[in-house]
Amino acid sequence: MGSGQMAEALARGLIDRGVVQASQICCSDPAPARKELFRSLGCTPYDTNFEVAKNCDVVFVSVKPQYVHTVLTEARPVLKEDTLVISIAAGITVAQLLEAAGPNARVCRVMPNTPCLVGETAAAMCLGGKATSDDGETVVSLFSAVGKIYQLDEKLLAAVTGLSGSGPAYIYMLIEALADGGVRAGLPRDVAQGLAAQTVLGSAKMVLETGRHPGALKDMVTSPGGTTIAGVHELEKAGFRAACINAVVAATQRANELSKPQ
Amino acid sequence: MGSGQMAEALARGLIDRGVVQASQICCSDPAPARKELFRSLGCTPYDTNFEVAKNCDVVFVSVKPQYVHTVLTEARPVLKEDTLVISIAAGITVAQLLEAAGPNARVCRVMPNTPCLVGETAAAMCLGGKATSDDGETVVSLFSAVGKIYQLDEKLLAAVTGLSGSGPAYIYMLIEALADGGVRAGLPRDVAQGLAAQTVLGSAKMVLETGRHPGALKDMVTSPGGTTIAGVHELEKAGFRAACINAVVAATQRANELSKPQ
Repeated sequence: MGSGQMAEALARGLIDRGVVQASQICCSDPAPARKELFRSLGCTPYDTNFEVAKNCDVVFVSVKPQYVHTVLTEARPVLKEDTLVISIAAGITVAQLLEAAGPNARVCRVMPNTPCLVGETAAAMCLGGKATSDDGETVVSLFSAVGKIYQLDEKLLAAVTGLSGSGPAYIYMLIEALADGGVRAGLPRDVAQGLAAQTVLGSAKMVLETGRHPGALKDMVTSPGGTTIAGVHELEKAGFRAACINAVVAATQRANELSKPQ
Repeated sequence: MGSGQMAEALARGLIDRGVVQASQICCSDPAPARKELFRSLGCTPYDTNFEVAKNCDVVFVSVKPQYVHTVLTEARPVLKEDTLVISIAAGITVAQLLEAAGPNARVCRVMPNTPCLVGETAAAMCLGGKATSDDGETVVSLFSAVGKIYQLDEKLLAAVTGLSGSGPAYIYMLIEALADGGVRAGLPRDVAQGLAAQTVLGSAKMVLETGRHPGALKDMVTSPGGTTIAGVHELEKAGFRAACINAVVAATQRANELSKPQ
């Protein structure tokens, strides 16, 4: 239900990785262009959310947060006992999902982030009370097709929003600023941005693939009196680490404020 | 010549991507364990750098900067007219390479970075006067097997050192600090670090694959009054961007100092 960017990224990821076949995916959207795009992937577009809910065992709620209540209330009469409802709407709580879909609905709330679009999301999930551990495994296997997912208590989802939900913006700022540094040092803009983005990608992959502590990896590339420690010193002088911690904490606080009843 | 971490990463990358066959690669190293490792990859280990230089059309100089002169002087008598010498030694200039290998040697200087180990290096190169544009293409195709490489004027390699050479350390600091922010907001350490590293990876991949400007991508994920702008605000308050620019500039300056004659 809802066929926006995130729904498309999920559908492409699931199809590309062979987790489900395109013919197994139904969708709905008010925009004809979005339905046409999903049809071109091999999925079946329907005219209404109601039809999607009726025809699917796993229903993704992939609409803007303000429409979740309407969409789920519409779908409620046709949700089967074993229908799994997965909401990716930011800030919409499990309690709110159950209020709309019914107290016996098997619901799961997921907080993905936009790199879902390139198959590298960082996501977290929590299950509603009626959802089974099998449901949890279903959600993990679906999202593992487009990145990484952790299962957590719902109270921690605000921190996930502050870290990985909002985090891409911090990294885009960083890439732009590192590229600015390269330009300041004389590099052409396209080279500077290419080197910056590739360095960010490669370094993150080093942390993920070597499993070594980032502090240890930093020490390994920091020769005595070398170039790297000169750069590190500048970051420390500016309170770079504290700024990162503050950003995550401030965004988490804002997520907590937003999920309180208005 | 030299079979350390970077040589191993290159060899593995070239073999895995099918750019060259393992049997085409020769190596040398004083440490028996390193020779054994290369033998296990299917490469041919020799006892001396001299033998490697004698038997290869493309010779990688992958030893610490202080040994480059000795190793190249040793190899000089057996360098053929069409032998391409690729040095990845930090700070060793084309002029220094030619001084050791001979004025007619076809040399190339490359500045890779450690994510070479996971096939995602960000590198730059410059060619010596006797190297041909075909040599340039050879180097590009070799390093494209383990990441990205740009061809630049030698005077810009110091800026590359300050940006992508030293950059991994900045990113390791960032990942650790973002994880600290997550822990501050209540997340378990392993979840926080996993989300942080995956967010950094995914966001960089978004920049590289969408080809959109990082500033535009930042704007796309920054909802009015939302969580992300709260985090962005904290970064701006701390001078996050200026700190990144300063780091690259300071590391570049140090690279320039180091490449001057002592």
